[in-house]
Parts: sequence; C-alpha cells; structure tokens
Amino acid sequence: MTKKKQIDTSIMTLGTAKIPSPVEAREGKGEQRCFVQDEERILVNARQDRVMTAVKNGKEPLSFERAGPRRKIYFDPSKLRCAIVSCGGLCPGTNDIIRSLVLALHYNYGVHNICGIRYGFQGFMSSHGHELMELTPETVSNIHEGGGTVLGTSRGSQDIESIVDVLERTNIRLLFTIGGDGTMVASTMIADAIMKRGLKIGVIGIPKTIDNDIYLIDRSFGFGTAVGVAVDVIRSAHNEATSALNGIGLVKLMGRHSGFIAAEATLAMPVVNFALIPESDFDLGGPGGFLEVLKERLLHRKHAVIVVAEGAGQKFFENEPKRYDASGNVRLHNIGLFLKEIITDYFIKEKMEATLKYIDPSYMIRSVPANTNDGVLCGLLARRAVHAGMAGKTKMLVGLCNNHFVHIPMEETVGKRRQVDCRGDMWMGVLETTGQNSLKN
Amino acid sequence: MTKKKQIDTSIMTLGTAKIPSPVEAREGKGEQRCFVQDEERILVNARQDRVMTAVKNGKEPLSFERAGPRRKIYFDPSKLRCAIVSCGGLCPGTNDIIRSLVLALHYNYGVHNICGIRYGFQGFMSSHGHELMELTPETVSNIHEGGGTVLGTSRGSQDIESIVDVLERTNIRLLFTIGGDGTMVASTMIADAIMKRGLKIGVIGIPKTIDNDIYLIDRSFGFGTAVGVAVDVIRSAHNEATSALNGIGLVKLMGRHSGFIAAEATLAMPVVNFALIPESDFDLGGPGGFLEVLKERLLHRKHAVIVVAEGAGQKFFENEPKRYDASGNVRLHNIGLFLKEIITDYFIKEKMEATLKYIDPSYMIRSVPANTNDGVLCGLLARRAVHAGMAGKTKMLVGLCNNHFVHIPMEETVGKRRQVDCRGDMWMGVLETTGQNSLKN
Amino acid sequence: MTKKKQIDTSIMTLGTAKIPSPVEAREGKGEQRCFVQDEERILVNARQDRVMTAVKNGKEPLSFERAGPRRKIYFDPSKLRCAIVSCGGLCPGTNDIIRSLVLALHYNYGVHNICGIRYGFQGFMSSHGHELMELTPETVSNIHEGGGTVLGTSRGSQDIESIVDVLERTNIRLLFTIGGDGTMVASTMIADAIMKRGLKIGVIGIPKTIDNDIYLIDRSFGFGTAVGVAVDVIRSAHNEATSALNGIGLVKLMGRHSGFIAAEATLAMPVVNFALIPESDFDLGGPGGFLEVLKERLLHRKHAVIVVAEGAGQKFFENEPKRYDASGNVRLHNIGLFLKEIITDYFIKEKMEATLKYIDPSYMIRSVPANTNDGVLCGLLARRAVHAGMAGKTKMLVGLCNNHFVHIPMEETVGKRRQVDCRGDMWMGVLETTGQNSLKN
Amino acid sequence: MTKKKQIDTSIMTLGTAKIPSPVEAREGKGEQRCFVQDEERILVNARQDRVMTAVKNGKEPLSFERAGPRRKIYFDPSKLRCAIVSCGGLCPGTNDIIRSLVLALHYNYGVHNICGIRYGFQGFMSSHGHELMELTPETVSNIHEGGGTVLGTSRGSQDIESIVDVLERTNIRLLFTIGGDGTMVASTMIADAIMKRGLKIGVIGIPKTIDNDIYLIDRSFGFGTAVGVAVDVIRSAHNEATSALNGIGLVKLMGRHSGFIAAEATLAMPVVNFALIPESDFDLGGPGGFLEVLKERLLHRKHAVIVVAEGAGQKFFENEPKRYDASGNVRLHNIGLFLKEIITDYFIKEKMEATLKYIDPSYMIRSVPANTNDGVLCGLLARRAVHAGMAGKTKMLVGLCNNHFVHIPMEETVGKRRQVDCRGDMWMGVLETTGQNSLKN
Repeated sequence: MTKKKQIDTSIMTLGTAKIPSPVEAREGKGEQRCFVQDEERILVNARQDRVMTAVKNGKEPLSFERAGPRRKIYFDPSKLRCAIVSCGGLCPGTNDIIRSLVLALHYNYGVHNICGIRYGFQGFMSSHGHELMELTPETVSNIHEGGGTVLGTSRGSQDIESIVDVLERTNIRLLFTIGGDGTMVASTMIADAIMKRGLKIGVIGIPKTIDNDIYLIDRSFGFGTAVGVAVDVIRSAHNEATSALNGIGLVKLMGRHSGFIAAEATLAMPVVNFALIPESDFDLGGPGGFLEVLKERLLHRKHAVIVVAEGAGQKFFENEPKRYDASGNVRLHNIGLFLKEIITDYFIKEKMEATLKYIDPSYMIRSVPANTNDGVLCGLLARRAVHAGMAGKTKMLVGLCNNHFVHIPMEETVGKRRQVDCRGDMWMGVLETTGQNSLKN
Repeated sequence: MTKKKQIDTSIMTLGTAKIPSPVEAREGKGEQRCFVQDEERILVNARQDRVMTAVKNGKEPLSFERAGPRRKIYFDPSKLRCAIVSCGGLCPGTNDIIRSLVLALHYNYGVHNICGIRYGFQGFMSSHGHELMELTPETVSNIHEGGGTVLGTSRGSQDIESIVDVLERTNIRLLFTIGGDGTMVASTMIADAIMKRGLKIGVIGIPKTIDNDIYLIDRSFGFGTAVGVAVDVIRSAHNEATSALNGIGLVKLMGRHSGFIAAEATLAMPVVNFALIPESDFDLGGPGGFLEVLKERLLHRKHAVIVVAEGAGQKFFENEPKRYDASGNVRLHNIGLFLKEIITDYFIKEKMEATLKYIDPSYMIRSVPANTNDGVLCGLLARRAVHAGMAGKTKMLVGLCNNHFVHIPMEETVGKRRQVDCRGDMWMGVLETTGQNSLKN
Repeated sequence: MTKKKQIDTSIMTLGTAKIPSPVEAREGKGEQRCFVQDEERILVNARQDRVMTAVKNGKEPLSFERAGPRRKIYFDPSKLRCAIVSCGGLCPGTNDIIRSLVLALHYNYGVHNICGIRYGFQGFMSSHGHELMELTPETVSNIHEGGGTVLGTSRGSQDIESIVDVLERTNIRLLFTIGGDGTMVASTMIADAIMKRGLKIGVIGIPKTIDNDIYLIDRSFGFGTAVGVAVDVIRSAHNEATSALNGIGLVKLMGRHSGFIAAEATLAMPVVNFALIPESDFDLGGPGGFLEVLKERLLHRKHAVIVVAEGAGQKFFENEPKRYDASGNVRLHNIGLFLKEIITDYFIKEKMEATLKYIDPSYMIRSVPANTNDGVLCGLLARRAVHAGMAGKTKMLVGLCNNHFVHIPMEETVGKRRQVDCRGDMWMGVLETTGQNSLKN
Repeated sequence: MTKKKQIDTSIMTLGTAKIPSPVEAREGKGEQRCFVQDEERILVNARQDRVMTAVKNGKEPLSFERAGPRRKIYFDPSKLRCAIVSCGGLCPGTNDIIRSLVLALHYNYGVHNICGIRYGFQGFMSSHGHELMELTPETVSNIHEGGGTVLGTSRGSQDIESIVDVLERTNIRLLFTIGGDGTMVASTMIADAIMKRGLKIGVIGIPKTIDNDIYLIDRSFGFGTAVGVAVDVIRSAHNEATSALNGIGLVKLMGRHSGFIAAEATLAMPVVNFALIPESDFDLGGPGGFLEVLKERLLHRKHAVIVVAEGAGQKFFENEPKRYDASGNVRLHNIGLFLKEIITDYFIKEKMEATLKYIDPSYMIRSVPANTNDGVLCGLLARRAVHAGMAGKTKMLVGLCNNHFVHIPMEETVGKRRQVDCRGDMWMGVLETTGQNSLKN
C-alpha cells in the first residue's frame, strides 16, 4: 500500500474556469442543483483502520477528486466544438456512453457542435479518408438499443502529432476518448502533445474494459452485461455436459489478465466445476493436477463444466513464439482450444469415453446492448465526463470509486490492472461453489 | 408427385384394441371427450386443384391417419411397462417430450411403470452398465425448464437383437424413441425384429430434428426455438460487422442437408446480406461469384453479414476424404472455418482492409429450453404418441401435417428429407431481404 | 359444415392484369421465380375423408385462392400511390406488417409513393388535421424492433364516403387496412363505395387479432408472441401464489369471444389450476361450482393459479346494463375484478385465510414487439398482401390456411369467429394439465 | 452528519469464539483463506475531506465492522441447529439468499441441521400448524431459478415470547431472518427476549427491500432486478402512448417512502416524461402544476409517459382516513388509480381527446427470479451472514457499504430510510432525461 501513497492524484486543468455553468439555470425552478467543489475528495480505500493508521503516521490517505458539475466552467458552450472517439474491442454500453455524452453536452450545456471520429484513432488520419460524423440528439436518440459502436472502432494507435494536427485544424477543443489501456496511453500522449504546443484542448477518457480490471476503479461499464450473457452460455454448456455420458462443457470467457468475468459468472451460475483464471496457477498432469481431478469428477458425477479465462494457463505456451496484435498487445495463445485438445487426448489415452463440447462465445458477449444496470452506469459516467471536460479538466478519466464518481489522472491507471485477489472472499466463493482444490501437484 | 401416391400410409397394429379407453372416464363430467377414428384421414397436400385432378383420374390423394385418442386401447394400463429413449444431438424440447409422455401415460391412462433408457440406445447394452431411470410425474415435473435431455443421449446404433432381448427380458411392452433419421432407421429395425419374434411390443417414434427437414412434416419441435436463438447471434454478428471498417460477421448455423434455419433466421433478422444453404449452389471466385460480390458490398456499404448453413458449399471439399461420425452420418467439412480462411486470404490478396468475426453458435442453440410455441407443440405431440401407443399402433411416428397431428409409417420418412424450395416463396423472401443474386459465374 | 359450402370464395378484381410483373426480372439471374396462378386453390379442410365424401356427393370442397406473386399485375408501379392504415387495439407485429408492406412495394415492385394514415380511419378525416406520413424504406427500416404501431391507431369507424373522397382526391389507388373485425367491416364498406363510384381502387385487408379467432384462418400474427408474454405473467402469479399461505394468483388474459390465449398459455405453463374461457360455461357457487372446487384445492395444495379470459363468465353480468366502446363493440364487464372480489369475499365468509394477487397484464402483452416466429409470419403475410394488391385484387384479405397463404373475400370472415372446440384435443389438453373438471353444478 | 456520529456501531456477541473455523481447512491446499478480524472497519462515508475534518476535530469517523470469515467460531457445527425465516412482500433473490445460507452452512461449516420456518413468523406459532421444512443442499439446489420464496412468507409480527419459546424448545441456536423494516424490528425484539432469558441464540438479519431504501446501505438485493423489469413495462407504456392520439402511458412502480426504482428506471429507459416520487413534492392543478404541464406536453408531442412511485403524492389523500396492513404499515392510498381518474377527468373537462393506459406491474416485478448481478450479491451476502452467525455475532444485519460487506447493529437501521437526494446527481439526471420542471405552482 505504500506505493499508492506516492500516486499523484491532482487533476490538470486547461486554465481557470470563469464562466457560470448553464446547469445553474435550473436553480430557482424547484430543485436546486448541488454543485461539486474540487475540494471534495473520495477515499480510494474505505478501510477506516488503515485510514486512521495513515493519519496517525502523518500521511494523507489516498483520495480522488469527486466528479460532478462545477459552478464555473472553462469553455464557452456556444463556441465549443467537441469530438468523441471509440477504440479497441466491442464492449456493451459504448453506444450508451456516446449517446449520453451528446445529450449532456447538448441539453445541459448547450454545446451544439459535436462530431464523432470514425473507426477509432484511424478516423483522424486523412489517409484513411473517413468523414467525421455529426452527432446530434436526433442521431443518437436510439443508439443505446444496439450493441457495438455507431462510430466504429479499430485497434492500434496512430501518429500522435497528426491527431493533434487534426484537433487543431478542425477546431476541436474537447476530445472524449472511450477505450482500454492502450487508448488511455495514446490519450495521455495526445494530452502531452497538446500541452507542448500550448493549445487549450481538453482530453477526457472514459475507460472501457469488459474485463473489469481497471486499476483503482470499482466497476467498469459492460462488465455486468457480459457476465449476464456468460451465464447463459454456461447454462448451455451444462446442458450439453449432462446430456452426454462423461460430457464435458468447456467455455472460454474473456479475461486477458484477470479472471473477473469467469469468477463472477461462476458465482452467478453455480453449475461450474472448474474455474481457471490467470491469477490462479494450475498444473495439467501429475497427481492433483487438473486432468486427474477432472477424471475423478467424471468417474463420480459423469459430467463436468469448465470455465477458462482467455489469459489463464499461458505458462503452457512459454516455448512458443510471442505474437502481437495491431494495438501492440501480446496475442495470447488460445487456452480454450489447447485445453480442448489436451483433454480429448487424455481421455483417449485413458481409454475413457468422454464427449467434450467447446464454446467460445466472446463475440456474442461483447456485442450485445448494455443491460439496465450498465445503461444507468453509462449515463452517469458520461454525464460526469462532460462536467469534467466543460470545467476545463484534462488528461484525466472518470471512474467509480466507493460508489462515488471521481476524476483520476490518466497516468495513474495506465499499465496497471486490478486482479482477482486469490485470498479474498470472491475467489473463496468460487472455490466453494466449484469445490475445486488447488489443481497443483 | 406420382411417386408419393405409391407411399403406403397404412399403420401397423399389434392386434385388436378391445379395452375401453380410461380417457373416456371424463365423459359425463362436463366436457365430452371427442375420440378419433382410424377412418379420419388428413390430406398431405391441401391443394384443392391437385386433389380434384387426382380424383378425376381415379386416384386416391395421399393422406395419413389422424392422431388422437381412440375409444378402445390395446394395452391394459395397470400391467403395462413403458420405456423412453432419446438419441442423437440435442434439440430444444426433448425434455418437454419426455415430460409429456410420462404425464400423459400416468394421468390419462393410469400407466405407472415407466422407465428411461440412459444415453440413447447405449443404455440398452448391459456392457455399458447404465441403470434404467424410473420416470414419475414427480421426477419429470420441472425438466422442461432445462435444455438438453435428462435421459442423456448418444450417437450411433447398437445391436438390434440385444435391444429386443432387453425389451423382452425387462417386460417393456411400449417403447418411445425420440431421435432423428438414424434413430428412426434403428426403430424400424427394432420393430421388425420384434415382429419376427412374434412379440407384442409397440414402437412409436417422435421425430427430432432441429433442422426441420423431416419429409412430409410441417414443423418439427425445437426448430422455432433454434431460429429464435440464431436471430440473437445474427444480431451480434451485425453489431461486430458494423463496428469495424469493412467488418464481416460470419455465422455458421445448423442445417446439414437443408437450409431452413438459415433461411428462416434471415427472414426474421433482415440484416443478413448473404444466406448460403445446401439447396442453392454458389461459386466462390470468378465474376459474379461470392467473393467478388462480397467485395462490392464492402466497397459500397462497409460491412457485411453472412449466414451459412453447415451443409452449404460441400462441393468445395470434393477432393477431400470422406469421414463418418458414430451414427454413420457423413461428417461434413467445416464450411464456416473454410469461408473464414478463404475470405481473409482474399482480402489480403486484394490489399483491402477487412475484419472478419466468425461465430459458430451451434452448441448454444441446440441446448436451450424450448420456447413457448415449441413447448406447446411438444406437449401435443407427446400426448398423441401416447394415444397411438396405447391403441396398439406400432412402427409409426407422430407428426404435424396441415395443422393436424397424424400417424406416419416409419419407413415412409426415413432416408428422405424436406428441403428449401428454391423457387418457392420462402427462398424468394430470403433473396429479397438479402438482395443477393445467384452468386454463380 | 354444410353452411360452409355456400361460402362464395371467389375474389374480386379491379380489372384485367396486363402488366408483366417486375418480380419476373429476377428470372435468368439464378433462381427462377415461381409465379402462382389463380387456379391454384387451397382446401379449407384437409380432412381427406370429408373431401372424398363431398366429391362423391357431387359437391366441390371449400377452397381458397392461393396467395403469391402473379405473372401479370394490374397497376403501373411507377404511377401508383398506396396507403396503409392500422386500426383498433395494439397487437405485436403490426410494425412488422407496415415495414414489410413498404419494403415489398418498394423493392419488389418499384412503388415509391407510399403513405401512412395516422391514428386509424380518423386520419382520413380532415377535421382531425392529421398529416399523412410518407413511408420509405428508410423510415420503416427499424420499426419492427418496437411494439405498437408507428402510424398510430384509434377505435371506431368514420364516414365511409369521406374516406373514399380522400382516396380519390389524394390519388391513392391501393389501400392496405390492418385491423380486426370492425376494420374489416369498414373495409368492405369502403370497397363497396369505391365500386359504386366506378373507381379503380384496391382494398386489401391484413386481419389483426391478438385473440387468434379469425374465422377460417389458422394463426393470426401476434398471437404466439402474446402467449409467450402471458406465460411469464403466469409464472409470476404462480410465484406469488406459492409464496403465501393459501395464495391465489389470478391472471386476466385477453380473449373477448375465444379462449385461445388462455388455453395455449395454460398448455405452455402447466402450473395453471383453473382456466376459464368464454367457450366453457361454469358456475360459481353450489356443489361442484368454481368456489367450492377452489377451496378444495387450497385445502389440499395450499395455493392455486387461475387464468381467466376477459370474455369468460359474462353471464354473471346479465342484469347489468350493456355498454359499448368507440368501435361499437360491447364493452365486457371486468370478469377479473369480479372474480377477485367474489373469491375474497367467499374466503372471508368461509373464515379461511387466503391471499389473492390479481394481475391484469393486457397492456404489457399487446404492446411488445413480435417474437421471431411472428416476425417471419408478418413478413410473409405482408408480402402476399402486396402481391394481391398489385395484381388488382380487392375486397379481400390474406391469411394462413393449412400452411398456405390464401385470399379470402372480406365478407366471408367478418362477424364470424373461431372458437376453442371444447370437445377437441386442445381443450382436452388444458383439462388434463389443470386437472379441472366441469365446474358446474 | 453530527447525528450519525452518535450511532453505536459495536456488534453484540453471544460469547467468546474459541473453535477454530473449519473454513481454515482449505489452507495448505493451494489458496490460503484470508480471515477477517473484528478490527477491520469500513468507513460509512468515503469523503476524504469530511473524514479529515472529523479527525482534526478529534472525532472518530463512523465505520462498521467488516464482514467475512473469522478464524475462530462460536458454535460447534456438528451440534448446531439453524433456522431461516422469510417475511413480508416478495423480492427477487430471496430464494438465492435461502439457498446460499444452506450451502454455506452445510459445505463451509459442516452444519447439517437446518430448517425453514414456513410463511414468515406465523410458522413459529403452533396454532397455525405449519410443519418445519428441512433444508438440505438437495432441497435448495435449484430454488434460485424461481421467484418468490420456497419457505412462504406472510405479513405481520407474532408474539415474541412464543417465538423464543419455539427456538428454545426446538433447540435452534442460530436464526436468520430475511425481511424488511418490520422484520428487523421483530428480530431486535427476539434478540432482546433471548438475552433476557440468558439464552445463547444468535439472530442475524438479511435486510430485504425491493425499494433499495435501507439506511446506510448501498444496494439491497432485488433492486437491480426490479428496475430491469420496470424498464420493460415502461417500454410497453411508451408503445401504448405513442400508438394513440394524445396517448398517455401511466405506470405505477414500487417505492413507499423512496423513489429509487422510479428514478433508476427513468435513467435506464429515457422515454419517461414525468417521474413522480415521494421525495419531490408536486401540485396537480394551477399554473405550472402537473396537469397543465402534461397538457402542454400532449399539445407539442402528442404522447406522454408518466412513472409514479406508490408513495408519491400522498398529500392528496390527507383528508382520507388512515388504514393499516397486517404488518402495521400505513396502507398507502393508490396514487396510480387516483392519477388515472384525475387525468381522465381533466382532459374531458378540457375537451381534449386523450387515451390513458394505466399499468400496475408490481406483482410481476417483485416475483421474478434475481438477475445475474443480484444473484451474485445474494450469494455473497448470505455467505457473510453465515460467517457472522457462526462467529457468535447477534442482533445485527449484513449489508453492503462502500463495496465492502459490513456488520450493522439492527437498531441502527430500523425505522430509518434512505431517500433520493433531490439535490444530488441521480435526481438531476432524472430531471435532465425527463425534462420535467418543478411541477409546483
């Protein structure tokens, strides 16, 4: 925890916010708008004993600026031109974010000049020839009913200076970036290049990761929806498994570095017998290894359901060459197909009849519309991103921390990840519901 | 149509039904049960003009015996022991069928001795050591809420004489077989072996095919449910396709010999741009071929959704060796993966950026519970199978024909298949909604 | 059945169809369009024995003209202006019908001048001041994702001559009316008034009734969707009933004159203990009456689920004054609220603790979007309505009869209704699953 | 906030926990269980600035004991008999709670003697003659798939001393009570009576309120599920409203004292034009009043969707006599039916055609099974209730506070309620999406 205290949680601004917020206008018409002040801060860790210890030792406990509407704003809404870009893989709720950004800019602040960048950062490159997409309340009115992103998306960064050129040339003064870790890295670089040029352009990030592994953030949008769909798939895998003699249902779920989806789906659909995640090491062969325990399970119960996060068991590919995707992320080896073959071969060798059904539902999970809970989260998140951007904040992202929305400096989350705590209650719950042991020799 | 007239539609019976049906007991208590007589027959073809022509030419138009409760039954319910077996791949509604068979036998006829054969015909083989499963209203009460089959299933036939040995030894006098074409072939052989031994054991088939391609039958259970799930998958594929630059969503659907699922799902979810089915030939390369048309589509609309039935395009594998599954069915080559590679390679060669997402949802489609409509169909179908079996009918199956349930001799459907009529209105509807042309050179 | 044979099933036309169908254009590009000829007819009753008896007696068995594209059409598409109107209560699938009418007119026939009449026949009355709504493929593209009707609807007829005035004045030559019995009556009158004036304006009806009680027609759109939602409501009622001591879940479902929804929902969700429909009389008090049997049920099983169609038990209101709605339909007395009070009072009088939860989900059922099956049905139905209209047919409606789409003269269905056959297999299935007896003294 | 600091947050125990937790057994088999110590505490308010101010002023910021497994437990599992009771109205997730309590007691602690009390506290009264229900992993295995509560429920308290008599006589040493405010009041009284008798019986509450208004607690189980269903109903109401001329969809949602469901559903389904909740006063007539604004809306947009929480507008019934339900709660007057009549009369008086459809979906919302998110929450909540009970804690309830599960003394939440903050961001979001103003004269 000591490291955390060195985190710089102060938020950069483009300058002094002097313009009275138009949001104020509602005052006097019944409800009075409650503005938020920069001094309001939210503790990252709500553990009272730790906070008190820190205080006693003369240390300030880590906290983030509270998000919300400010009484004064930096930009003149009537002159402001904003842009929105979505990057990386699909995630339920992306359209909700886009929609709410547009509605909040338009109706709360009176910003009527908003454009969408097509297909991720690629849309900034004139070489690709993508037109900007004008975004109005009418064009975004129903987009939250559909999955994916109406702006389109792509992987991979682009030349930072060219992006800033476009922002400057097209008079965009406020940029909202929706994306994962790589997008936030690029957003940081864009913000730095902007400052270097002495421009007054804000960059606000809305972190997107279906894996729910953003450092310091409670819950990211789309995660709950993903778990809901994953649960349906696991139910199908269970039906396949129980309908065959020694039936095995094997489901690969998302989770490159963290097993949150696999763990939460297991808690929600307690027919899973093995949950394999990146955070928890396991062996395949040998006594107490996965294959032996799986065989025991089949002998006793005649079926088994296995859930594996895509980042689990990467040690089995240690000798294989590394590959990278367009964003520069290491391309994981396919643990699902690997297990399918290993398990099938094992039972042939053991001369035991077994039927394995392998399901890889990733594209079906990430492309659905947000469920109700995520829809509400997206609306609140986007609205706060707008408040922050209008107030002149920059190089920051919005997130949920202890049930409050906060401003987090971009550098503080990039390159770091939340992971399942294998000694914590969530993973204990998984072990209890699956009954699986350590799966190690 | 001339061939059809040579079909023998007469139904075999084990002997004269002399016992008054206990179903009759309800008479006098309000509603009066309306019994069905063997003379009531349903026309296979409801085309009046064809019927009249046949009559004028002195021919009898093809018709099937109407299903339903008979006034007299053959078996004494108090002494009867029945068995149920489910075979082949999963299909939504199988548990509904099992449940309704048990409830109808128990409550309508007072048959209290019903057992389930485990894991398909394999459950008859003592060498496999599967116990019979006693089936009561209590054990089946909620099974329709889950997909799969509580009896378990397997592929492949077994030694016919051994099966009849078990039926004889365990005193099973009425066997219900739930399965596809292979199961009906085996059921025919079992019924023949029974007759050869002079036994009085009935064999009633409930045809199961998620592909909806049973010859002479309007609609088979599970098909509507499958289409419903397929539609959700296509929606996801569409979201993937539209979110990427030149995004291609490729969905492989079930349909070994017929494209009913692919065609109906396309009608229901009109975002599909290409529907490829076994009945409609297409070329890949060359002018007017699939790849060229696909490229045109991307150039104009920047995305495409392709649905391919698993039996489509098998001509592309003509030079590959034939493979067979445990049931003796030819194992089709994977047209989905084949197209995925062909398309990806094509756009690399054409130096055109394109992103293809391939989804194979088969195990997620076939393992869900039946939807409402299929649930009702299963209940009515199973109840009629029980009526037929109790009346002493054998070597027949129950099916839906022109909105009436009928008895069909097993030999008349096995080895034949309904297919999509490429000159009919359904396929025309598909062509209209996709806008696809012939895709041939 | 004798009456039926006097039905005049011939279809009126506006004149000779001489223009080659543009649908033909697809010929030669792969699939060849299969046109339908007027001589192709579909038997209303597929019972072979009855058909043969009729033939022997020299009578023609009742049949309808088969629907589908004709080789020649009556209207010149480039000059044609069409209109669509939707009337009466909401029904799932109405937007699918509108959408498919527009797409088929536009893409199959090249008709580019299509307008929607707002809020039912009211939209024809200039006094109401509603604008016409231009309908294009773009405006209808996604409307099937939503329930209700984008055109709006209203109850009640309007002055027929004024409607024809508008048709004449605005140059509308083809009118599609979507509605129930009252709408078809009005459509007949409009067609008659048109003929009297010697105009060449076609009127094609698409019958809409969530109750599925159209005379001579197998299945009307929206019905399957309605049953699906009703099943969810019944599940909720069951949860309420079983969670309380002597809990009673009472659900009122649609069905003014026929109990199809109540019966089919009961078959699909076999937790219902009492299904009350208009076709089956029942008594409340006295020995064997509903209240006594309900009490017995509670004493033995501690809970009960009751489903009542809105038209059931209207005899209990015989002494109350008759009321009418805007369409002139008799306003039924609320049997749901009536039973709620009667049952509550009864158990107070019997000094027996009981908890009744009453659910009236009608507005939630009728306003949902069509499910997959209904969506496909709507698409096929609308396309055939367009084929008929373009061919110059008039004063007819399209419907499904023995799995074929047919043309039915409007007069032959109006004022008549299909009802549940209380001696048939469906109702027997209901009695078996509920275990209810006659409920009569 | 000063009041809060006087809250006594210390948790009562039955005695010293001396028995090593069997949960510890997993240690050494791979993952090491991370036990929680009583000293770990969670801040109620995560606002860093407020905490620091409090500390500077020498005050201890309010915090609760962290929930989780303790290293030592109080009860010997092999001898322990536990009981579970569920009270009050239905709430999604109740069966999940029951199931997880049983599984955690059985598998984590080895408690094999667990019984369910039938129909709320009524099940303790011998006069009612309800049998106890033995609860085992088998009996609860699938109950989470259904809504309601398998134990049954009832309203109203019972004689406290008689309840303690039963606990004593039947040797129940640990009682889990699932219920709302009234249930927690009764639970407190039971715990007090137990202590007075010097008995060692633990009482652990799991607070249940679909309204999400438990004081000091972030989110209660079932709320998210309820909002999800409410959203579907609002979608239906919107379809009804837009399909009629001046159509009004009026939906009454749950929320006796707080409008969380109405507010969150409005955020999730932004077609709502008026959200009326208990926390925000409104006038009906007069300038700027609800009826006038509604009329304006209809004149401009031709439809309106209204959501009203059941506790809203109770001031309109001030002159009516007060009524109470079996639990002693004030029976609210039906604001939904009241508005239906007021609005209908108003537009008749204004001579303006309008069609109002009123939907009261409460029984359909509260009786559904928990969704995925709530299912996970229930599992975690119940497991912590078990940990607390086994450790000898009593007169407390478990709840979620700043993403941590905590122990809360029962007295501290009863009789108090969380409400929507009308100056906070959630309500501001509602005002923004509806566009409604103060609705006051």
